[in-house]
Amino acid sequence: MPGMDIAFLIFDQLTMLDAVGPYEVLHRVPGADVKLVAAEPGLKRDEKGITGLVADHSLDDVSEPDVLVIPGGWGTRALMKDPEILDWVRSVHSTSTWTTSVCTGALLLAGAGLLEGRRATTHWLALDVIAEHGAIVTEERVVRDGKIITAAGVSSGIDMALTLAAELAGQRAAEAIQLQIEYDPQPPFDAGSRAKAPAEVVDALIAAGVKNS
Amino acid sequence: MPGMDIAFLIFDQLTMLDAVGPYEVLHRVPGADVKLVAAEPGLKRDEKGITGLVADHSLDDVSEPDVLVIPGGWGTRALMKDPEILDWVRSVHSTSTWTTSVCTGALLLAGAGLLEGRRATTHWLALDVIAEHGAIVTEERVVRDGKIITAAGVSSGIDMALTLAAELAGQRAAEAIQLQIEYDPQPPFDAGSRAKAPAEVVDALIAAGVKNS
Repeated sequence: MPGMDIAFLIFDQLTMLDAVGPYEVLHRVPGADVKLVAAEPGLKRDEKGITGLVADHSLDDVSEPDVLVIPGGWGTRALMKDPEILDWVRSVHSTSTWTTSVCTGALLLAGAGLLEGRRATTHWLALDVIAEHGAIVTEERVVRDGKIITAAGVSSGIDMALTLAAELAGQRAAEAIQLQIEYDPQPPFDAGSRAKAPAEVVDALIAAGVKNS
Repeated sequence: MPGMDIAFLIFDQLTMLDAVGPYEVLHRVPGADVKLVAAEPGLKRDEKGITGLVADHSLDDVSEPDVLVIPGGWGTRALMKDPEILDWVRSVHSTSTWTTSVCTGALLLAGAGLLEGRRATTHWLALDVIAEHGAIVTEERVVRDGKIITAAGVSSGIDMALTLAAELAGQRAAEAIQLQIEYDPQPPFDAGSRAKAPAEVVDALIAAGVKNS
């Protein structure tokens, strides 16, 4: 698929891994032309302000990408009510082959009205937000409904992107990318979901509130 | 451990996920003060030049961090012969609590002479390079030898950082981070290591050469 445009929408207060997990997979898809896009190009700082990603492209520069990826982060809480961003998301979605999100990137899809009546997911601490916008919430890690793919929290974007890479370029190409990034996960603990983590760990994060998402 | 300084060394032609995987884990460690450091502060572009990370700190700014993380990327091939960088790495290692690398970040440790006679790993396509510098090569995903922890290719930095987070702040804190980043990996394929990937996929990457590492 030569000349396949893949746009990442980035913004201040993003979660770095939400974007960089899928980025590291998708820029390796044969023929992919990845562009980082922002309302105002330049450096977008992460939630902690410690570092950031740079966007070289404006929304107007990239109006009809084949694939849209929306990462999450605290910044999505404001952007999910931002008319300029939501108009762009809706417009891109009207011509995209795939429209995807990681973590609370799904809040922008929800804000744009695109999850109404669709199966979708997001970070486990934000599932209620997309439900309020009509999504049929599921806790699967990667959820596909038509051409919309939503992924769970933060690190799930890697799994989402490998699934997408196989759709774009075939399973062998996706496997080659998986081997390039040596994605043979071996977490030292088994606490990566609400169902698996110790109850005290889950309860403490819920008590600490949604800023963790 | 309040006021624990964690330094990431970044540079042009880095692999984004090598840095951002551990970053997303380690900035959440209670008391962690993460700083991105470069020979010249500013934006460091990734291997593809599509985006980059920003370093706000110079080498002189951050001379005695408790933890050093060195990500990989094509840029390490030049830096592993750069006296200024190698002097800094050696100096930091002389006072660090932990000295770590992801992927070909290990080449800088090797170039600094720190892997001589030590068990270590790196991206599977670069194992010979650290072996030439005296490392006892192993293909485990996360290898600890004394206070040096090396991780395999790209995505392995997440596993390394969770292991390190438990050392720094205890298992419960590491589990809380794992749940925050919802790290419950479910790769759609099982091709993440040389041993597991289809032979044709492995052979094609070897034929394509070391630039994949």
